[in-house]
Amino acid sequence: MRYHKIPDETIRRLPLYWRAVNLMSARGHSRISSTMLSDMAHINPWQIRKDLSYFGAFGTRGVGYDTEKLREKIGEILRLNSTQKAVLVGVGNLGIALLKYPGFKLYGFDIVAAFDNDIRKIGQTINGITVESISKLNMLRRKKIFIGILAVPSDEAQYIAGKLIDMGFCGLLNFAPLKVKAPKKVTIINIDIALDLARLPYYMPARQAGKKSN
Amino acid sequence: MRYHKIPDETIRRLPLYWRAVNLMSARGHSRISSTMLSDMAHINPWQIRKDLSYFGAFGTRGVGYDTEKLREKIGEILRLNSTQKAVLVGVGNLGIALLKYPGFKLYGFDIVAAFDNDIRKIGQTINGITVESISKLNMLRRKKIFIGILAVPSDEAQYIAGKLIDMGFCGLLNFAPLKVKAPKKVTIINIDIALDLARLPYYMPARQAGKKSN
Repeated sequence: MRYHKIPDETIRRLPLYWRAVNLMSARGHSRISSTMLSDMAHINPWQIRKDLSYFGAFGTRGVGYDTEKLREKIGEILRLNSTQKAVLVGVGNLGIALLKYPGFKLYGFDIVAAFDNDIRKIGQTINGITVESISKLNMLRRKKIFIGILAVPSDEAQYIAGKLIDMGFCGLLNFAPLKVKAPKKVTIINIDIALDLARLPYYMPARQAGKKSN
Repeated sequence: MRYHKIPDETIRRLPLYWRAVNLMSARGHSRISSTMLSDMAHINPWQIRKDLSYFGAFGTRGVGYDTEKLREKIGEILRLNSTQKAVLVGVGNLGIALLKYPGFKLYGFDIVAAFDNDIRKIGQTINGITVESISKLNMLRRKKIFIGILAVPSDEAQYIAGKLIDMGFCGLLNFAPLKVKAPKKVTIINIDIALDLARLPYYMPARQAGKKSN
């Protein structure tokens, strides 16, 4: 089932709720209020209630949400309840960090293959994954994998994205610092790791936030 | 000047506008409409107008915003108009990737020092920065640097954060997959690189999005 007319901003916040609800579930809380969710996800309680209301009324005023039902529901909306296989292309420093990153598992993502064009990397095993030559990307054609993670240099990102899309990939997470273009049916999420840093000075005391006269 | 009562969600979106306005400026556009901004930042035009209206009326209906004024204004709000010095702790794969990442410069961030406790890393020069021993962190005390980037393992993140905070750091960007605790006067932004991946399946065609019966 696909939900329509949900603002992208709401979808952007759902993973935050998902992470918080999973943590509350692991801690044994059977109920969770929008205030508790708010404290963990750093989103206003009214915004949380509004976001969740798009998907039907499954909270009770004054009682909150049933943790397991909420977890099931958000997982169903985001389609995180089953394992999603993903492939990594680019095993440089960032790629290796991604292969070792434990956070993907929490969201049900399993990186099952990694590719690079550097012969010093091909054949190396990192966190259980043996790096394959990029010339073997075609072997993915029969594997029913649709999610690709791009950690290649900027000047290769568009080319690799095109190859994956040709093979039927329809979801790409791009870490290269340029926007990758793709047909409409393909979803590309461009990650800019500096973007979060940009709001840090706003919250810092004025004295420390690098005034021009510093 | 510090702006008050601005929702955190608005502050979270401002760097997106900043990036788009910088790009438009570099392309020589002297005016920018909220629709153009919307296309580049993937935020609704009405949301953009609302966000920007918190900071005064500097757009003209039907004409849009003056690109340079908007750039100056957003930079002033986020305090990105002057260079911000930052320090990196943890020169593992992620740390090296961050040292090499060109994106920080766009937001006016300059990583001026890097620290690690691995003797194989100490003394190495990466992108012009020579890695120092973590035992020399104290040398930062006189340097008037207030922003730290943590790319250390989870079990070291809290300890290192504490050391930096003791030295007067008040803004930390934490890449370790756990929440670092700090006094209220310190702003910590915890980065979860898997979070963005979590909304990818939502946008993918149902057939490819890993149904349980796959």
